[in-house]
Amino acid sequence: MDLIQHIESQRESHLNELKEFLRIPSVSAKSEHKKDIEQAARWVAEKLRAAGLEKVEITPTQMHPLVYGESLRAPGKPTILLYGHYDVQPAEPLDLWTSAPFEPEVRGGNLFGRGTADDKGQVHIHLKALEALRAVHGHLPINVKVMIEGEEEVGSVSLWDFVSRNRERLRADALVVSDTSMLAKGVPSITYGLRGLNYYEIAITGPAQDLHSGVFGGAVPNPLTILSETIAKLHDRDFRVTVPGFYDDVAKIPREERKALHSLPWKEKEFRRTVGAPGLCGEKGFSIVEQLWIRPTLELNGIWGGYTGEGAKTVIPSKAHAKLSTRLVPNQDPKKIARLVERHIRKLLPKTVTHTFEVLSTGKPWVAPYTHPVFQKALHALEAGFGKKAVFIREGGSIPFVTQMHDTFRVPCVLLGFGLPDENAHAPDEHIALDNYYGGIKAVALFYEELAA
Amino acid sequence: MDLIQHIESQRESHLNELKEFLRIPSVSAKSEHKKDIEQAARWVAEKLRAAGLEKVEITPTQMHPLVYGESLRAPGKPTILLYGHYDVQPAEPLDLWTSAPFEPEVRGGNLFGRGTADDKGQVHIHLKALEALRAVHGHLPINVKVMIEGEEEVGSVSLWDFVSRNRERLRADALVVSDTSMLAKGVPSITYGLRGLNYYEIAITGPAQDLHSGVFGGAVPNPLTILSETIAKLHDRDFRVTVPGFYDDVAKIPREERKALHSLPWKEKEFRRTVGAPGLCGEKGFSIVEQLWIRPTLELNGIWGGYTGEGAKTVIPSKAHAKLSTRLVPNQDPKKIARLVERHIRKLLPKTVTHTFEVLSTGKPWVAPYTHPVFQKALHALEAGFGKKAVFIREGGSIPFVTQMHDTFRVPCVLLGFGLPDENAHAPDEHIALDNYYGGIKAVALFYEELAA
Repeated sequence: MDLIQHIESQRESHLNELKEFLRIPSVSAKSEHKKDIEQAARWVAEKLRAAGLEKVEITPTQMHPLVYGESLRAPGKPTILLYGHYDVQPAEPLDLWTSAPFEPEVRGGNLFGRGTADDKGQVHIHLKALEALRAVHGHLPINVKVMIEGEEEVGSVSLWDFVSRNRERLRADALVVSDTSMLAKGVPSITYGLRGLNYYEIAITGPAQDLHSGVFGGAVPNPLTILSETIAKLHDRDFRVTVPGFYDDVAKIPREERKALHSLPWKEKEFRRTVGAPGLCGEKGFSIVEQLWIRPTLELNGIWGGYTGEGAKTVIPSKAHAKLSTRLVPNQDPKKIARLVERHIRKLLPKTVTHTFEVLSTGKPWVAPYTHPVFQKALHALEAGFGKKAVFIREGGSIPFVTQMHDTFRVPCVLLGFGLPDENAHAPDEHIALDNYYGGIKAVALFYEELAA
Repeated sequence: MDLIQHIESQRESHLNELKEFLRIPSVSAKSEHKKDIEQAARWVAEKLRAAGLEKVEITPTQMHPLVYGESLRAPGKPTILLYGHYDVQPAEPLDLWTSAPFEPEVRGGNLFGRGTADDKGQVHIHLKALEALRAVHGHLPINVKVMIEGEEEVGSVSLWDFVSRNRERLRADALVVSDTSMLAKGVPSITYGLRGLNYYEIAITGPAQDLHSGVFGGAVPNPLTILSETIAKLHDRDFRVTVPGFYDDVAKIPREERKALHSLPWKEKEFRRTVGAPGLCGEKGFSIVEQLWIRPTLELNGIWGGYTGEGAKTVIPSKAHAKLSTRLVPNQDPKKIARLVERHIRKLLPKTVTHTFEVLSTGKPWVAPYTHPVFQKALHALEAGFGKKAVFIREGGSIPFVTQMHDTFRVPCVLLGFGLPDENAHAPDEHIALDNYYGGIKAVALFYEELAA
């Protein structure tokens, strides 16, 4: 039986097994899910063993365990280091899910559930591709090192420790990651650029305690108003970030690359439909694709303070809070940007309040030389697995690990993304198209076969 | 035994009974407290009967029951209509209370608990003053009509229905209300001016659903940013409200009254200590007392949207929310102001988002002619009950009922406040000074005796 036939024959069992994986609520941001995280790590380890990897270990860390496995029985063949994560975003707000986030359900050719696209579904594609190669060839035709972490959604804190301590062991000819999206349905894609991510939290304190807005209103600093006024000053009328020096190190994009980006089958109409807002809003002077992929941003991710319950409460609260983040592009330095953002916000705040400013995480941007042969083999495998023309794209999201690995090992990083931009990663009703899930297993298996050839 | 001696002899039983009242968590804003509200109403009715009122009724309304009682056995003597409320503000945030909000506790001469100052403690002062008069005189020396409602903290929705339907029955020579504060410790006060209150809620929707801030960030309208930018435009650099027409109808204060306000023993230092912020912030060109009592304001009371939990979530939320309110002064018309605020906010919002704007409640400002004899009798009673010089003041808070009653019956409204501005009404660790609680019972009893003379 050939590889593709074998994979086709396993569709039902693959889907059922993926559902099992998705039912584990491995939310890394919430300490109450500690046990679920551990269960998910054990689940991944078990499947790696089933795929024929010899050495499989669950490594405890200061936060969530990391699963590592390897198979090095193909002497003279390339070695691939595969990365993925088994942790997921919080599922809130729960009331906006059509079916329960941790009870996966197929509807209209899509599988719905937290982690379907980001990243359990894509991790599972690789687990099943490896298993298929082993089933058909009797052994794995290339050498693989697999590293599946549990902290991607909270900044991959422990991962870098692990990589540093296992530098020699992790050495490979290429890194493969599936945690990105295809450009669009029917357009298999390789991502060659990612934005970096800094995440911040700010808390402002005005009055020492909550005050009655009638008795005190009009003469005291309201932290909600001051927070809003401060946030409002972070963008100018052209929606450029006002932090001094923010754009200083932004790399110019070669004209050729910009042209290639603009010739992609990217559908603005579909993007607008996915967003579903009455209009779009971005930095003046750049196309939407440029705003999303090659321009840095500053976004509010959360804001809260005062009375947020039912009805009315006439309060001037003591505190106001916001979570915000900056997406970074080559060659912005995350640590430098964090300093600039902090300094700017501190300067903007009036002396009538106190505040705390916390940098929760920093992450570098990344861009790859997509002319390298390994990228070309990946492109061919994608086209064979999907039966469609494949493309090179950038992406607006961040995988800090990719940059760190690139900086450490200086090997090509191949990002094979099987999600779609409208699949609600990080939002209610997250899903993955079953066509891409099944196509992904075939493409990845073919890619590894081609590397072994 | 004379009146004062009698009241002094009951200190312990008065305090114990008040604690019983405070233990009922009669939070009117939350539907889960429906039963507590009903229990509080029954408790008040029982105490009115104990104070010698003949007709005591619990009137059901569309929301929370209203307690009414009367005693009309003093022919030829004045009739007083007494108003108070047995409902309280929500106790959140619970973790900022030193002792549990509904487990009253005496510390350092103060009684702590939700409702101690606003308004259960003050209602209880009147219940005990009436009971003392009856105990000492054998009957109530004046005619009283008592109306204690359960919706003051949520806009007194049903009260006005009740008043309209009982217009003749409620007729009185004066209205007495204790739901305000004394100017400062040791300064018994009569409030002759209150600000009105409009309360609004706004919700902004950008994307149709929560989006990944990496994949979508930089090109889509972020409702948190847009909400903040809109709020920031509601005040100018001098902290004047920018709503066009907002100040048009504000009455000028006579020079004499302004002078009297400035000569009050109001301590800026104490005010600053109570607020506890690094600085103050108010409308330019006005003193703090003026900002608090005679100037209208616009305050944020709550704001929320996006991820507000532990750690980081890279989301652009679909929705952002805010609760805000305007405090109004004579002769601003609440309905007109609501229209102006709504129109201004709608104009400020960009076309990239949709929104809803809701007026939760409106309430008129009020000012009284404090030269009327009933005010002078009240001033004397206060001075006798407390053994201190008493003053006429204004207050920044709102009691919509006072305005409505004034408009309906055109009789003097006497606001005898026994709270203090730093007693955390509407905030954690709400309390009342026991000196004022006991002094209040004596002053009110003496006031009614003086009216009967």
